[in-house]
Amino acid sequence: MNFDDYIFHMPLKVRDYELDAEGIVNNANYLHYMEYTRHEFCEQAGVSFKAMLDEGIVPVVRKIEIEYLSSLRSTDVAESCIRYERKGAKFIFYQDIFRGDELIARGIVTIVSIENGRLSRGERLAEYFKDYER
Amino acid sequence: MNFDDYIFHMPLKVRDYELDAEGIVNNANYLHYMEYTRHEFCEQAGVSFKAMLDEGIVPVVRKIEIEYLSSLRSTDVAESCIRYERKGAKFIFYQDIFRGDELIARGIVTIVSIENGRLSRGERLAEYFKDYER
Amino acid sequence: MNFDDYIFHMPLKVRDYELDAEGIVNNANYLHYMEYTRHEFCEQAGVSFKAMLDEGIVPVVRKIEIEYLSSLRSTDVAESCIRYERKGAKFIFYQDIFRGDELIARGIVTIVSIENGRLSRGERLAEYFKDYER
Amino acid sequence: MNFDDYIFHMPLKVRDYELDAEGIVNNANYLHYMEYTRHEFCEQAGVSFKAMLDEGIVPVVRKIEIEYLSSLRSTDVAESCIRYERKGAKFIFYQDIFRGDELIARGIVTIVSIENGRLSRGERLAEYFKDYER
Repeated sequence: MNFDDYIFHMPLKVRDYELDAEGIVNNANYLHYMEYTRHEFCEQAGVSFKAMLDEGIVPVVRKIEIEYLSSLRSTDVAESCIRYERKGAKFIFYQDIFRGDELIARGIVTIVSIENGRLSRGERLAEYFKDYER
Repeated sequence: MNFDDYIFHMPLKVRDYELDAEGIVNNANYLHYMEYTRHEFCEQAGVSFKAMLDEGIVPVVRKIEIEYLSSLRSTDVAESCIRYERKGAKFIFYQDIFRGDELIARGIVTIVSIENGRLSRGERLAEYFKDYER
Repeated sequence: MNFDDYIFHMPLKVRDYELDAEGIVNNANYLHYMEYTRHEFCEQAGVSFKAMLDEGIVPVVRKIEIEYLSSLRSTDVAESCIRYERKGAKFIFYQDIFRGDELIARGIVTIVSIENGRLSRGERLAEYFKDYER
Repeated sequence: MNFDDYIFHMPLKVRDYELDAEGIVNNANYLHYMEYTRHEFCEQAGVSFKAMLDEGIVPVVRKIEIEYLSSLRSTDVAESCIRYERKGAKFIFYQDIFRGDELIARGIVTIVSIENGRLSRGERLAEYFKDYER
């Protein structure tokens, strides 16, 4: 599998406490995986989530659409991948999670940016990501 | 606020370990709230989730769309509400989370049913919910 | 079972997302149960955890000893019980979790209090709990 | 820092969803870290936790003692370290979590082994770990 089409990707090993009684990763944990991947991407882009908060930039999740095509299980190592697009005040992250060549889950996460205490057009947040826009 | 339009609703008090560093309930925990509410609804409908699994009926989340309109915070007591609709093999749960009159989050959760080891039309799962269909 | 010997107790229903692949509540979730119970106790004592933080009182967990005597499972409703003792700067919570008459887990949680930005003797925190000391 | 004195150690990066409203990793998540580290150790020892369950060997946590000496925060990378000792039917894991040279948390986790459906002396579980005993 070639992940070069994404702006960022990272391996994520399933941890057994993330499984539920069916022996599969619980649906909510995919949002954890996706949040963690976004924050790691931010660090690669030069700014940690914490540094953003310290700067008065508060990214807020407005909407998530996620499809579960298959399930992750114990000992699986997934690859968590991101694409990014800005649409006006919205920052849209396309987040795909693979196991080998198999697409396991596909999320679309819409973020808006509270800047200086109010909903913004996202100018300051966009600055961090400008090299990654497609 | 009148919740009679829903087939099931229950209070959910925020627990402080569900907050993140921004002091708001982390986005993934809303999926926990919604799953818990569905399972409580199932019990009211006469069957626990565990009993379903024991019967060879495995409801699987296929898709979730969730909008975050506001945030839950420490000490908040939310009301978690469900409507239900069957569309062919899909069981669609409309799940709204309120704080008082304010809609905080709105989810649409699509479930399919693995029955006797294979993806089914959901006949057996539908049987449990037939009094709640709209 | 008579829980009058405790200063506070509350029911806690198991949520299925708290189970792991063995079908029992994961060991870490007992610390969540215990923290939530302490915070509910604080509210009964007249102050929420959040209100404490706003006052510059930051209770910090220093030590936890927990014994797991049995396991909680799907649909179980546990009773989470607290006793409290102050030993110098340490606030010690004896936390027992029952299912019916059966003791499931027993924790001893040692808290210290950061007050005005430094480790304190806990005078201000103790003030809240003074009616509950044994 | 030299971790050679441990039988197994691995890095663990803090994920922001593990923080609570105080901006530090919530106390329960340390048990997650420690469980994950034990399971990774098991894989290094040649058997995954899942494989154990499939073999009818069910390790069960009986007791945990954990001291919190400091706190992990956003962007921290901890080193999670294990020593192991067998005392009769008890498997005792000494689990230390460092940030650089600083010991952050110290746990002692006591495990017993359910083998073939009943509490055992742990002969089969011990077999897996025999090269790591000190």
